[in-house]
Amino acid sequence: MQRRNMVIMNKTRLEAFSDGVLAIIITIMILEIKMPHNADWSSLMELHSVFICYVLSFAFIGIYWGNHHHLVHTVKVVSPSVIWANMHLLFWLSLIPLATNWMGENHFARNTVIAYAVLLLLCGLSYTLLQTTIEKSNVLSPELKDAFAAVKRKGIVSVICYSSSIPLAFVHTAISGCLFAAVAIMWIIPERNIAKALKE
Amino acid sequence: MQRRNMVIMNKTRLEAFSDGVLAIIITIMILEIKMPHNADWSSLMELHSVFICYVLSFAFIGIYWGNHHHLVHTVKVVSPSVIWANMHLLFWLSLIPLATNWMGENHFARNTVIAYAVLLLLCGLSYTLLQTTIEKSNVLSPELKDAFAAVKRKGIVSVICYSSSIPLAFVHTAISGCLFAAVAIMWIIPERNIAKALKE
Amino acid sequence: MQRRNMVIMNKTRLEAFSDGVLAIIITIMILEIKMPHNADWSSLMELHSVFICYVLSFAFIGIYWGNHHHLVHTVKVVSPSVIWANMHLLFWLSLIPLATNWMGENHFARNTVIAYAVLLLLCGLSYTLLQTTIEKSNVLSPELKDAFAAVKRKGIVSVICYSSSIPLAFVHTAISGCLFAAVAIMWIIPERNIAKALKE
Amino acid sequence: MQRRNMVIMNKTRLEAFSDGVLAIIITIMILEIKMPHNADWSSLMELHSVFICYVLSFAFIGIYWGNHHHLVHTVKVVSPSVIWANMHLLFWLSLIPLATNWMGENHFARNTVIAYAVLLLLCGLSYTLLQTTIEKSNVLSPELKDAFAAVKRKGIVSVICYSSSIPLAFVHTAISGCLFAAVAIMWIIPERNIAKALKE
Repeated sequence: MQRRNMVIMNKTRLEAFSDGVLAIIITIMILEIKMPHNADWSSLMELHSVFICYVLSFAFIGIYWGNHHHLVHTVKVVSPSVIWANMHLLFWLSLIPLATNWMGENHFARNTVIAYAVLLLLCGLSYTLLQTTIEKSNVLSPELKDAFAAVKRKGIVSVICYSSSIPLAFVHTAISGCLFAAVAIMWIIPERNIAKALKE
Repeated sequence: MQRRNMVIMNKTRLEAFSDGVLAIIITIMILEIKMPHNADWSSLMELHSVFICYVLSFAFIGIYWGNHHHLVHTVKVVSPSVIWANMHLLFWLSLIPLATNWMGENHFARNTVIAYAVLLLLCGLSYTLLQTTIEKSNVLSPELKDAFAAVKRKGIVSVICYSSSIPLAFVHTAISGCLFAAVAIMWIIPERNIAKALKE
Repeated sequence: MQRRNMVIMNKTRLEAFSDGVLAIIITIMILEIKMPHNADWSSLMELHSVFICYVLSFAFIGIYWGNHHHLVHTVKVVSPSVIWANMHLLFWLSLIPLATNWMGENHFARNTVIAYAVLLLLCGLSYTLLQTTIEKSNVLSPELKDAFAAVKRKGIVSVICYSSSIPLAFVHTAISGCLFAAVAIMWIIPERNIAKALKE
Repeated sequence: MQRRNMVIMNKTRLEAFSDGVLAIIITIMILEIKMPHNADWSSLMELHSVFICYVLSFAFIGIYWGNHHHLVHTVKVVSPSVIWANMHLLFWLSLIPLATNWMGENHFARNTVIAYAVLLLLCGLSYTLLQTTIEKSNVLSPELKDAFAAVKRKGIVSVICYSSSIPLAFVHTAISGCLFAAVAIMWIIPERNIAKALKE
């Protein structure tokens, strides 16, 4: 019972810390948005690309939170490698407010879109790395194994989309934008498989 | 038991994440308040409209937290749609510091009051949407159904108040301000019905 | 059991939200400290009064957290009035970073010390109000009643100290500073009585 | 049971508050990073030393979180002295974003590296102080005692490394940087001993 208790504690704090970091990341992005100093609608409208970037990044962090939540829920053993793979993911996610701000302030200039794509790619790879680390240190039921395989397939598709959005930004940055949105939509309902596997 | 355990976990993290985001939203608003660089009372007094806006928004976020707390407390099943309706509400609430700052710095200029009213309207609609989503994915007791209906009525009154505060801002922005305050007061003691229904 | 469960939930979220807000207040104060743009020790030394203010406010928030923790621990019933008394306390505490920043940047100018004293006074009164609200909505054991009375006595002494630090700032601001420090020291070990009462 | 319950509560809130503060410290560091106002790669590249400092400090806070997590996990009795030793550690850790920012903006100028080393030294000493305080107020199993002794040895080595990095910064700041990295690597897998002792 000592052993079991310890593992539960570990997991709770891992979740609590991750929730805290994700909640802060998602919220401090608005601190980067500088409101105009006058009350004109036209000044407010100039923020439109900053706002679109905020919506996109809010959605991405929200999606990561939802998926992270289901992934960590499957963890029984929190090994040091799981803690560090999680910290590694949080590190790349913590840079999203910066990339969002850079892209928004420069109205989707090509370089900023490429930087955003590279960051999303690194986040995607870190997520898959975390999943692999969890798989290695936990014994999974056959149902969970299937669910994990399905999630990993989605992870690979995401990485391909992000990777191709980098050269495609040289054609038109809107293509990259569509690819970002496509990946987001693919992950929006992510939990079905893991949730089902846990229930059975 | 596996199933029940999972649902409780879900809810705990949904609450933890929402609490985190709301706590940050309510607190970072003060980061937008720039203190004067000298020690004169008159410089401090110039912040009076910024301060009034801060009080108003603090009250609104506090009220949302209180009501959210009671609403989510009734949840038994956290479906993906509940997670996304919740995320949607948090998105609009996260913009409150910006609208607060804009309204305060421009001393309740008409445009800024309208923007604030529109944002409150969107928050109000998101809250009702979250409630509807929870109702659909959970089986409610007759008492809870009554409580939910009462809350929904308050939601509709709020939406009407916010909507009418937009055209009324063209008459005088103080009328809109009074309507905001009236809605806040209406929600300050929100929990009685749900709390009673849960106890019975 | 439904009833009991509900009350526990309430309290957990009240604590979680308060912890979140207090953790953010205590941490964002450093965002107000602007590091010099060069690497000279002399530029760093110019921050000494900002730093002293940070230490003072960190200690105050830490003390409030410790005492709040023990106070809320005694709560069995979280009534709406407890929620609002708590929110009221958090409101005044949330202004501490602003007052700290103003006092630090203006090197303890008299007006800023008075503003800080007024804010501490309002925080102190809010704390006593929260305690009174908890006393009213909960049935306390005789031991807890004694402990509460001791805490209330400390609260009254604090209010007197803060109140007198306002006129005394006109004599010399250092007197006010000493009074702030004296109150802080008085509260640093606050929990003995309540902790003992709960154990018995 | 009352007694046991109280102690568990205490610990939970101590962990929650520490998690909150650490999550905020680790995340607000990015608010100090100012993105360039144009979309040139060369402008972005100018941030390289700011970025390196961010990585270093992220790693340090992450390591403190991981080790703090295991240390507090061993606590059974949360005495006021444990609360204050913990608050003292959080105080020094809260200054890391400032020192990081100073060092990054001044491209590892000697003074800034020395300031960073002094701060890490103070954090290291606070951590050892927290450990000693926990040892004094808790009865430890022989396995835990061994684990604590091993951790304390690591603490002493860290303090020696940090201390020597201060004079060595006068030779070359890169030597100090290597010492910082060496200590970080030494602590990255910190938990084995305590984890093992708790399981047995």
